[in-house]
Amino acid sequence: MKAAYYLEKGKFELGEGKAISPGPDEVRLDVAFCGVCGTDVHIFHGVMDKRIDPPQIVGHEASAVVAEIGENVENVQVGEKVAIRPLQFGDPHPFDKGYPHVGKNLSFIGIDSAGAFQQSWTVPAYTLHKLPDQLNLKHGAFIEPLSVACHDVKIGRVAEGENCLVMGGGPIGTLIAYVLKKKNAQVIISEVNEARISMLKELGFQVINPVTENLPDRISELTQQAMIDCVFEVSGSQAAVSTMTEVVNVRGRIVMVAIHGGGPRSIDLFKFFWSEIEMLGARLYQEEDYEEAIQIAASGHIPFDKLITKVKPLSEIQAVFEEIDQNPAGMKYLINCQS
Amino acid sequence: MKAAYYLEKGKFELGEGKAISPGPDEVRLDVAFCGVCGTDVHIFHGVMDKRIDPPQIVGHEASAVVAEIGENVENVQVGEKVAIRPLQFGDPHPFDKGYPHVGKNLSFIGIDSAGAFQQSWTVPAYTLHKLPDQLNLKHGAFIEPLSVACHDVKIGRVAEGENCLVMGGGPIGTLIAYVLKKKNAQVIISEVNEARISMLKELGFQVINPVTENLPDRISELTQQAMIDCVFEVSGSQAAVSTMTEVVNVRGRIVMVAIHGGGPRSIDLFKFFWSEIEMLGARLYQEEDYEEAIQIAASGHIPFDKLITKVKPLSEIQAVFEEIDQNPAGMKYLINCQS
Repeated sequence: MKAAYYLEKGKFELGEGKAISPGPDEVRLDVAFCGVCGTDVHIFHGVMDKRIDPPQIVGHEASAVVAEIGENVENVQVGEKVAIRPLQFGDPHPFDKGYPHVGKNLSFIGIDSAGAFQQSWTVPAYTLHKLPDQLNLKHGAFIEPLSVACHDVKIGRVAEGENCLVMGGGPIGTLIAYVLKKKNAQVIISEVNEARISMLKELGFQVINPVTENLPDRISELTQQAMIDCVFEVSGSQAAVSTMTEVVNVRGRIVMVAIHGGGPRSIDLFKFFWSEIEMLGARLYQEEDYEEAIQIAASGHIPFDKLITKVKPLSEIQAVFEEIDQNPAGMKYLINCQS
Repeated sequence: MKAAYYLEKGKFELGEGKAISPGPDEVRLDVAFCGVCGTDVHIFHGVMDKRIDPPQIVGHEASAVVAEIGENVENVQVGEKVAIRPLQFGDPHPFDKGYPHVGKNLSFIGIDSAGAFQQSWTVPAYTLHKLPDQLNLKHGAFIEPLSVACHDVKIGRVAEGENCLVMGGGPIGTLIAYVLKKKNAQVIISEVNEARISMLKELGFQVINPVTENLPDRISELTQQAMIDCVFEVSGSQAAVSTMTEVVNVRGRIVMVAIHGGGPRSIDLFKFFWSEIEMLGARLYQEEDYEEAIQIAASGHIPFDKLITKVKPLSEIQAVFEEIDQNPAGMKYLINCQS
């Protein structure tokens, strides 16, 4: 069977993989589609070489069909469509307080161990969530990032009718916006890329470009001075961090979704004190977020086909990653792992 | 009657004040004791001249006896001991979301209008909280800062047995530590001033000096690697902001009590994402915080006499503020407003 290996900075190579018979509590999957995540792009850029172990198969936004089940597996049957929650929980640590999805000993499947950019993938059975019949496998590849969005909105405790701002209209930001719409919240997206802005407007979103417009002033107009109840910082930029405290109202929440990994950021702590602002870190997802994501996806609420930039075969993975680097307006690239 | 006026940077002056007959819903108080708050020290330093209007009477940590009541006043009677919640609520604003204590149109009595450093003070009746018989008027002057501490701990949602760190062992930090003890939380204080450290240790607190010890390492030892569930940042220093994200565990809370008013701070946002940390701004107090503070004070839980650095007559106010500037280890200075 075929597998794509990350070799070194800027380089994937298609090669032969080895289908692994599932042990007890394991399942072997025929991977259907796997989306390219920002994290995969980071890996391609070589900035995560300390964490991964080339030649390594990466990829974690997958849909699949159950090919073979190991002993004791009862939650899925051969032939069923599934999405994978790629978390391998380690031993509990006192630091974790019962949250294994962000625990000290968490291992991420597709980064810390072999991922989904291959035809056949063997994973623990508990990572699998069944997809309903009406959800096709391309859309099933969105369940992982959509679960991130569901988790973020849950952490933000968003209530019906609240004013929300999503800073950064990439794939995660856009999915957050759709989840917020599902909760009947008022959604504004701030985005700087004009091609993305056009696309988001066509999808029906209210979008502000904070480079060409004054974001706090525009939000004040749009909300009749009520300002924002919940901000989602998805951009990872200093500019957004500097602005986010300017747009939230009293007891407003800021959900920190972005990975600000490049060192400390400059932030206005006075505003936190003055208006009793909250900032809430959000990472990955919990089991219930997958269930919610599957429900939302199955409801037809999200026009996934409009979010798919391209679908390409596994054999073209190198070209896909090179194209992503040249296309900052792209949304979701899917890899068809069976072709 | 006597009143102390702030005239300009570094200068108070004792003068004649005018007792004001209470209008409807107002009460005239004989001020008993008024503590010197850090904010009053800022005023003395001239840094709040834009907000206040010299010659102005400041001071807001007061206990008092009801001297005269206006029409419609039913919540207090002449001769009763009271503490004052010095908040004048303005018109509601959509930005406030029903939290007038941090509302856009809030006016703070003692900064935005005449305060308690005078013999006779007229205030809205709703600002008054009755003090029980067993609480003396010196201790009653602690109700305002103790309410701040109760509010901070409430915002931090601290549960019994949780590990808490108070960064900064001044008056507010120490009162927070006492409120945490009352909740049966485990309390550690970090403080850099050696005289304060000695005092806090004598009061029975676990204290770490982050300059001479490695704070995260010591906390890891003391908590058997569980680290801190709730940090209270009271110091206002960049050093504390840089360390606070190093000591909290998964879903740990950081309550932002300090007024970081000197510009943006440098902060590790990656940690917020990684461990789903929360940061919660906390300012002033709500009515229920006063009730809790009075209950805790009346229970005898806090040895207030040990927290009083000096009690001085109103006539010596200038000398008191000068002494505070020379005594960074001092805790609470009280002004006796009737002498």
